[in-house]
Amino acid sequence: MSQKGCLSDAHGACISEPMCVYHKSEYIRFYCEECRVFICDDCITGKGKHRRCFKTKLSDYGNRTRRLLRERTKRAEDKLSKLSSELDLAMHVQKRFNEAVDESISSVVFRREIIRQKFDDLQKELITKLDGLRNQANTQYEEFINLHTNQYCKMKEVTETIRTTETEMTENDMVMYTSKLNKFIDSSEAVPKLEPPSYVTDDKYFSSKYLRQLFGDIEFVELNCQPIATY
Amino acid sequence: MSQKGCLSDAHGACISEPMCVYHKSEYIRFYCEECRVFICDDCITGKGKHRRCFKTKLSDYGNRTRRLLRERTKRAEDKLSKLSSELDLAMHVQKRFNEAVDESISSVVFRREIIRQKFDDLQKELITKLDGLRNQANTQYEEFINLHTNQYCKMKEVTETIRTTETEMTENDMVMYTSKLNKFIDSSEAVPKLEPPSYVTDDKYFSSKYLRQLFGDIEFVELNCQPIATY
Ligand SMILES: [Zn+2]
Ligand SMILES: [Zn+2]
Ligand SMILES: [Zn+2]
Ligand SMILES: [Zn+2]
Repeated sequence: MSQKGCLSDAHGACISEPMCVYHKSEYIRFYCEECRVFICDDCITGKGKHRRCFKTKLSDYGNRTRRLLRERTKRAEDKLSKLSSELDLAMHVQKRFNEAVDESISSVVFRREIIRQKFDDLQKELITKLDGLRNQANTQYEEFINLHTNQYCKMKEVTETIRTTETEMTENDMVMYTSKLNKFIDSSEAVPKLEPPSYVTDDKYFSSKYLRQLFGDIEFVELNCQPIATY
Repeated sequence: MSQKGCLSDAHGACISEPMCVYHKSEYIRFYCEECRVFICDDCITGKGKHRRCFKTKLSDYGNRTRRLLRERTKRAEDKLSKLSSELDLAMHVQKRFNEAVDESISSVVFRREIIRQKFDDLQKELITKLDGLRNQANTQYEEFINLHTNQYCKMKEVTETIRTTETEMTENDMVMYTSKLNKFIDSSEAVPKLEPPSYVTDDKYFSSKYLRQLFGDIEFVELNCQPIATY
């Protein structure tokens, strides 16, 4: 619209050239409020186009312009003060937003730590349980093996003694040995058959859904492209 | 029952003392199979208590004892060989049990590692998401702040220029400035109010049940006190 240093009326006439655009030899002397153009004496006399229009003297028009400028300047200053507050608010809101995100990140890290601890504890617990079952079983196996190894050695010696000394053995001894052998023959042993503990897992709990249930998730309002006023 | 070097009959008589317990002056000469005692000639003659019993000559009784001892020795040797196998089996079974437990422990550790990886990934993902939202929001805030700070400075300068130069200003300039101020006054700005993302968790998933679903658990057959043969 208007260029610097050139005030135009609605038809593009510029009052830095003080001559009427309709009557080139006449000075502009009025402002037609209805047609919003600068006009001269010829424009408002005789058959002049603006003879019936509501007109303002050029000096009054100038005073009004100044009043308007002053009023607008005051309003612009108020608006500047308001804008300053808005900018402070925006920076505050941005700071709060960032703090909230920082807090969320801290919470994520903290929860990760708790989860780490919980699964470390669970791992320890499971391994302790497995070790306990192992010890319990080994005790049974070792009891069995010791008992029967002992028995084996003792009876091995007995049979060897019998084989080497049987010919010169007294009847007493033969009966005594027979009795020992009978007891051994009638004895029974059952190897403990213990079912090893099994570690049972299910990979379905590795699904994103289950992991997120445990870890938690981010909820947020989708950022809409908010209209930002442009100048 | 029998003590070493002393073979007893059912009544405690001992043939290392070769005299009949019922007839102290008579030598033992028979074994009564029915009454299971060592007896003398007097025991089986006249009114002797064992006159009608089924008896074995002492020498035959001895041979039979030897045959029995030999047969029992053979069986004991078989049993020793079987016991040796049982002991091998027990050691093998124990070894397998321990290997199975080792495997379970490895699986627990391996699963712990996978879980660690999964939650590390999830943590990274959540933080990436939060950072993304943060950047998106900061872009909006900074766009707003830059735009309006710029506007603020520009208009601040304009109003100051007006305040200082208004008295000597041409009408053109006054109208031009008024127009600028009008645009500024009519402009609108809305501080972007973005909801910060929230990190939502639920501690109910920290229950042992949920953690074990994910980590897996040990299943085992309760160890019963199995009867071990005693000697
Ligand atoms: Zn004219
Ligand atoms: Zn007119
Ligand atoms: Zn007798
Ligand atoms: Zn008899």
